[in-house]
Amino acid sequence: MRAAVFYGANQPLKVEEVPKPQIGAGEILVKVAACGLCHTDLHYLDHGVPTFKKPPLILGHEVSGTVAEVAAGVSQFQVGDRVLLPAVMACGVCDNCRAGRGNICRHMVMLGNDVDGGYAEYIKAEASNVFHLPAEIPLIEGAIIADAITTPFHAVKNRGKVKPGDTVIVYGCGGVGLNLVQVANAAGASVIAVDMMEVKLNKAKELGAVATVNAGEVPDVAKAIRKLTGGGAEIAFECIGNPKTMESAFSSVRNGGRLVIVGYTEHTMTLNASRVMYREMEVIGSLGCPLTEYPKVIELVRTGKLQVETMVSRRFSLDQINEGLDFVRSGQGFRSVVVP
Amino acid sequence: MRAAVFYGANQPLKVEEVPKPQIGAGEILVKVAACGLCHTDLHYLDHGVPTFKKPPLILGHEVSGTVAEVAAGVSQFQVGDRVLLPAVMACGVCDNCRAGRGNICRHMVMLGNDVDGGYAEYIKAEASNVFHLPAEIPLIEGAIIADAITTPFHAVKNRGKVKPGDTVIVYGCGGVGLNLVQVANAAGASVIAVDMMEVKLNKAKELGAVATVNAGEVPDVAKAIRKLTGGGAEIAFECIGNPKTMESAFSSVRNGGRLVIVGYTEHTMTLNASRVMYREMEVIGSLGCPLTEYPKVIELVRTGKLQVETMVSRRFSLDQINEGLDFVRSGQGFRSVVVP
Amino acid sequence: MRAAVFYGANQPLKVEEVPKPQIGAGEILVKVAACGLCHTDLHYLDHGVPTFKKPPLILGHEVSGTVAEVAAGVSQFQVGDRVLLPAVMACGVCDNCRAGRGNICRHMVMLGNDVDGGYAEYIKAEASNVFHLPAEIPLIEGAIIADAITTPFHAVKNRGKVKPGDTVIVYGCGGVGLNLVQVANAAGASVIAVDMMEVKLNKAKELGAVATVNAGEVPDVAKAIRKLTGGGAEIAFECIGNPKTMESAFSSVRNGGRLVIVGYTEHTMTLNASRVMYREMEVIGSLGCPLTEYPKVIELVRTGKLQVETMVSRRFSLDQINEGLDFVRSGQGFRSVVVP
Amino acid sequence: MRAAVFYGANQPLKVEEVPKPQIGAGEILVKVAACGLCHTDLHYLDHGVPTFKKPPLILGHEVSGTVAEVAAGVSQFQVGDRVLLPAVMACGVCDNCRAGRGNICRHMVMLGNDVDGGYAEYIKAEASNVFHLPAEIPLIEGAIIADAITTPFHAVKNRGKVKPGDTVIVYGCGGVGLNLVQVANAAGASVIAVDMMEVKLNKAKELGAVATVNAGEVPDVAKAIRKLTGGGAEIAFECIGNPKTMESAFSSVRNGGRLVIVGYTEHTMTLNASRVMYREMEVIGSLGCPLTEYPKVIELVRTGKLQVETMVSRRFSLDQINEGLDFVRSGQGFRSVVVP
Repeated sequence: MRAAVFYGANQPLKVEEVPKPQIGAGEILVKVAACGLCHTDLHYLDHGVPTFKKPPLILGHEVSGTVAEVAAGVSQFQVGDRVLLPAVMACGVCDNCRAGRGNICRHMVMLGNDVDGGYAEYIKAEASNVFHLPAEIPLIEGAIIADAITTPFHAVKNRGKVKPGDTVIVYGCGGVGLNLVQVANAAGASVIAVDMMEVKLNKAKELGAVATVNAGEVPDVAKAIRKLTGGGAEIAFECIGNPKTMESAFSSVRNGGRLVIVGYTEHTMTLNASRVMYREMEVIGSLGCPLTEYPKVIELVRTGKLQVETMVSRRFSLDQINEGLDFVRSGQGFRSVVVP
Repeated sequence: MRAAVFYGANQPLKVEEVPKPQIGAGEILVKVAACGLCHTDLHYLDHGVPTFKKPPLILGHEVSGTVAEVAAGVSQFQVGDRVLLPAVMACGVCDNCRAGRGNICRHMVMLGNDVDGGYAEYIKAEASNVFHLPAEIPLIEGAIIADAITTPFHAVKNRGKVKPGDTVIVYGCGGVGLNLVQVANAAGASVIAVDMMEVKLNKAKELGAVATVNAGEVPDVAKAIRKLTGGGAEIAFECIGNPKTMESAFSSVRNGGRLVIVGYTEHTMTLNASRVMYREMEVIGSLGCPLTEYPKVIELVRTGKLQVETMVSRRFSLDQINEGLDFVRSGQGFRSVVVP
Repeated sequence: MRAAVFYGANQPLKVEEVPKPQIGAGEILVKVAACGLCHTDLHYLDHGVPTFKKPPLILGHEVSGTVAEVAAGVSQFQVGDRVLLPAVMACGVCDNCRAGRGNICRHMVMLGNDVDGGYAEYIKAEASNVFHLPAEIPLIEGAIIADAITTPFHAVKNRGKVKPGDTVIVYGCGGVGLNLVQVANAAGASVIAVDMMEVKLNKAKELGAVATVNAGEVPDVAKAIRKLTGGGAEIAFECIGNPKTMESAFSSVRNGGRLVIVGYTEHTMTLNASRVMYREMEVIGSLGCPLTEYPKVIELVRTGKLQVETMVSRRFSLDQINEGLDFVRSGQGFRSVVVP
Repeated sequence: MRAAVFYGANQPLKVEEVPKPQIGAGEILVKVAACGLCHTDLHYLDHGVPTFKKPPLILGHEVSGTVAEVAAGVSQFQVGDRVLLPAVMACGVCDNCRAGRGNICRHMVMLGNDVDGGYAEYIKAEASNVFHLPAEIPLIEGAIIADAITTPFHAVKNRGKVKPGDTVIVYGCGGVGLNLVQVANAAGASVIAVDMMEVKLNKAKELGAVATVNAGEVPDVAKAIRKLTGGGAEIAFECIGNPKTMESAFSSVRNGGRLVIVGYTEHTMTLNASRVMYREMEVIGSLGCPLTEYPKVIELVRTGKLQVETMVSRRFSLDQINEGLDFVRSGQGFRSVVVP
């Protein structure tokens, strides 16, 4: 089969012929319909973040497709079934998995990092980790559920604990932030979106934001939000990965409220410890999404409460994958996919 | 002022001239814009349920209006402000209030039961218990927030603990049930509505139900729902007040799931105790709504996530109030209001 | 090896020579130190409850021992390690497991029911399901952690959600009830124990109960408890399996409180539905214990917060097993063990 | 009556004759039995932190006593009743109070800060805020419940959410830290205490700590704790108020764990934001204690699960109060009280 193979940082992926995966007991082979292009791939390509499986490695962790082969004894899938693969698999037996927190599994396996991923014609997976994709969800755009939508879902439901009627701030309207806007909106929150680009703020409004703040146009974003909300929001989500916006987000939350850190930064943030204590603030991390939530997210997309089609900006063929990665690198679009 | 006064069971309310309420310290006087007509009133009128304040008593507990007078020292309201009164006031100091459960306050005070209510031109209230009604919410239809919408909101958020992507069953599509449909939908649930009347099931669909079951057309509702949901819903709400539907609702829930009892019945229900134990089921009561939730509900109505205008079937003048109560008695409409 | 084999209801277990289990990949062989005698075994023996593996079957699900063999690749155990086997294994991949509720796993496997159990010299198990038993815990008495203590632990922590300072009622001071007393006490609760036998109530006091009620000496247990507690306890646990005591337990709980059903009955209970609704009561089932809790329980035993030695009444050899089951049948003792 | 009056920073309290408080509607007068001496008083005296009521002000916020007068209509107290006053009163009507979080009430009133406190022969209070002190609790030492014990209780139960079997780290074994040790122990946790003084670590062991770490004797406290706990504790409490120990405490917690900030510092802390995100860490503030918890704490002291007598180091008369404050200033003792 053809695949886009990663040989090391600072060189393009090489699209070439590789052996088709051989499935073992309990596994299925999936013909890839689409695989999302993610900033995470740029960490390996541009910033030297090492992958757990040493190159050569097929990248790509956001995969939809159809079942091509089924191992003997696997009963829940048939050839031709439309499926979604989760970006990260959990072991099911470590303390975190058993406590319902498979997203921080001690032995997690990430597609396109620990094992070969989805920038290929085929990919194999353990059947117990694969989800059916209902007919109402488009096969190609459905791919982005596997990371772009589940990650915000977990952040909103389990870490932010957003409830109907809550006022929620989303800092940063890139792919994660915009999907967080639509998830929080679907959960009944009043969302205020913050970004510096009007086009992204407009998209946030389309996805349900009740108000927006252009961070380039106000001197103090936190102050603007405290004014808008009569004292601060219940919950803020930082989706940028910048200590300064984390600190601003922290200051935009009311007493007793919560800051959820979704964005990645290698730098430390400065935390007003007395404000944490006197106001009983909470600063909470959020990582990925446990598998238990996938059926919930799929149901929300199936019933139209969450959009996938409008969230996919462009499609690239496997041969165009380096062009697609350049498009991601340039910050254009919300989410793009490779269609092998 | 004119008011509809309750003198005892089995006689119509008497619309007559009574003294206008005199406000004391910390209170405001509200000119009533609308007061919802509720089945609860029929308990006093038809079924001999005693009111806590002995008749003569002005009934009515679902009140919107405008501020007419403000006691010295009350700063959060001005004459002319549009306001909503909660149906039930809490003491703020009992163990339940201090634990955030003012809806089961040990000293609760209900309008039109413990004290004079809203079937009148004016009503007084402690300012600390009154909420501003934003300009986006129609003054008359906004009245139904005070009970018809807050009661389902509490049931969904705090007792059912409905989360986005959950599948939820609502048994009974009267006023409470239909509002529960729209609240659960606003919270991100996939709602299946159950009733025997197609007109109500159609209204449920308009309010966001993804499926309906006509209980008159299937031999076993619980079985039908288990089939529809692949084994049972996460949460069922019984909004009828009938032990048989409670038992059916219990059987329509998956293992580890929850039945929330919202409807009132004077009869006992039969509970399969081994199913409760072996499947870790939960049977949970829900009563009214704590005041802390009112701003959340008002925000959901303000932003259009919950509807009030389409939920009000008819308006009656104060002089027509007994006609209005007949209309409620007949089971017609979803919610009707008196406009004094 | 020698084992006590179940051939069908209404006949004694047959102690005979059977093949020693052969371990496969990921498994360990455990030399049984002790296996608890449980009422559950009497369900199969006396009441015709079928086992999932058809007889012949080795019963016994509460096992401690030492590691005798380790499959290649298993690194967390060495021959000679002291270990505890959980009574019930979970699949780790079903929706309930992934949500942290492995105790209601859809594919659970119970020792001495789905597979051969611990009334034998040896037993095998998947290494990922086995726990280390620290040196502070006696090897033989430690066996009862696997069911007699973990089941109450889950009921107290996860289903009753007992918090420090709560007043808790325990109905029934058999093995489960007494261990529930000590677990609730260790969680900081004030426990009131209810039983009809003074010897059991005295044991409850030794295990930390602050008060007891002899149900044979008061006309109305619930009323007595409401008086003792100034209106009812926060939480009641029914550990008998009798609809009448369930109803009494329900009536002994304050408004907003919770009844947890731990005992099994084949009969239905009668539930006051209006009390459930008006007082926001909760009726909750509890089954077994998820594996995630085993390290917590082991830690509580290790540090002396929970007792095991005083909870084991008698030891029987494998040859005496039918005598031991007679002892359980007679209702004597709290928990007894077989020492093969 | 005689009282110790604060006239401003950097001068001793003046013990002098002042008018006895006059009670109003709903109030009681309490003859002070004891009032705890707290580091908070030193903030006003030594560090210029302003009090909300301008001096002259009677300090002292940890008060037990007996009822001396009761306003007409107050039925829950009689002259002679033994009582405890909470350190901080809540309004009962703000959003935080109604949500069960009166400890972050928007209109909180603190004894000895917003109003006259307990360094006096008498103090008045609203009856609804006062708690009965059972006969089992010594009247004088019972005073320290009002802050020294309730503050750790809230931190442990509501903010740390400590559960039985959890491993908990307590940084700092002063008055707050030591009481946190005993509260966490009473909640079923295995507590590891950290301090630099052996005498305090020994006291921690007496109060139930299962292990201690002398921070002066190990090069890296967090590393030592991660080793002791096999990867980090579930929850750490910082009771010192030092950014460096906060950062160490953060590093001593396992993935998915929680740091609770109880100590006050005017400085900022440095937070490893990527560790927060990738490990789903939580940093949580804790302030005081809501009134709803007082009956729970009193019950724990009544039943001997928490100690008060051994926690009171010295008693001072009202005339000795400045000597007593010097004793606190010197860091000696755990908690001392004034007995007017």
